[in-house]
Amino acid sequence: MNSNVTEFCRQCGKPLASRVPDGDNRERGVCTACGFIQYDNPKNIVGCLLEWQGKVLLCKRAIEPRHGYWTLPAGFMENNETTLEGAAREAHEEAHAQCDNLRLFGVYNLPRISQVYLMFFGRLRDGFAEAGDETLEVKLFKESEIPWKDLAFPVVTESLNRYYEMCEERSRQVHYADILNRPGEPLIIQRLP
Amino acid sequence: MNSNVTEFCRQCGKPLASRVPDGDNRERGVCTACGFIQYDNPKNIVGCLLEWQGKVLLCKRAIEPRHGYWTLPAGFMENNETTLEGAAREAHEEAHAQCDNLRLFGVYNLPRISQVYLMFFGRLRDGFAEAGDETLEVKLFKESEIPWKDLAFPVVTESLNRYYEMCEERSRQVHYADILNRPGEPLIIQRLP
Repeated sequence: MNSNVTEFCRQCGKPLASRVPDGDNRERGVCTACGFIQYDNPKNIVGCLLEWQGKVLLCKRAIEPRHGYWTLPAGFMENNETTLEGAAREAHEEAHAQCDNLRLFGVYNLPRISQVYLMFFGRLRDGFAEAGDETLEVKLFKESEIPWKDLAFPVVTESLNRYYEMCEERSRQVHYADILNRPGEPLIIQRLP
Repeated sequence: MNSNVTEFCRQCGKPLASRVPDGDNRERGVCTACGFIQYDNPKNIVGCLLEWQGKVLLCKRAIEPRHGYWTLPAGFMENNETTLEGAAREAHEEAHAQCDNLRLFGVYNLPRISQVYLMFFGRLRDGFAEAGDETLEVKLFKESEIPWKDLAFPVVTESLNRYYEMCEERSRQVHYADILNRPGEPLIIQRLP
């Protein structure tokens, strides 16, 4: 159960109780009236690192958390889309960008906040982008211009680090890591093979 | 909103109405009393393909859907775990198996049912497995013995196909595909680079 929300049953509106359902091994919210079980599971964030003529597209966030910091276009995956479709949708919503040749680039676990990032790499079509509703400003950055201290989230830092390593190694490996620090704190990243 | 459930607010128990929240672009369940917004997002299934002496571990399902069909150990990812930890947990719950050297192997989108499978490859420690509560029987299969017609889900078929391709190619690529058919129907799989 999410301790931030006093929980009621989605199915009938009566209160939930915290209880281990039959055949389960952990506490869930179980409806005291109709027996409905409320499962809460991690959410996926889908996004992309778009390249054009050696530059990378970043967006300055117009919303909290991390208002005013730079991020890669990314957001919550929606029902009935694929991870790739979601990444392309986010690029369009946040930066009015079209993507070509998207491919899975990194899978990053954020167990502290129960999120999984699925990041894609691709080409920014025609080099065109402009700020969407959740974005103050979009900009294409050369490696030497990346605002490392003003990146919104550790996963953005790690994605960019991996991207520049990939450029050096010319590899197409999918990166996998656990990201354990909070935004603004020193990076704690466990990379796995 | 999930049309299977007459929706009430998790926060206050009053009815939800289907409405596009301010700043959003799709309908959500919005509480008519307190304004709480109910977001429903895809769920991750984490699982693993475990190998021992050239054989692969499969589990015969003791639960619906697809009771009696063979599957790879896999299940819903839980909050506050990584995808790899979840895959190892499922192997233990469903087959009392311990895993070594797990690495991400495949990411499969099932947009029809809003699921993403994250499958890992690894070694089955000591070749030991036995049926957990949700499993009728566990067995190690050689390639020639795989019960292709009695596999539970298309994602199991695709994972095994990719595994045997990987063995031939000796590649460590992470596979990515959209799986579009229902269980028991002919495979409709869109593989992406």
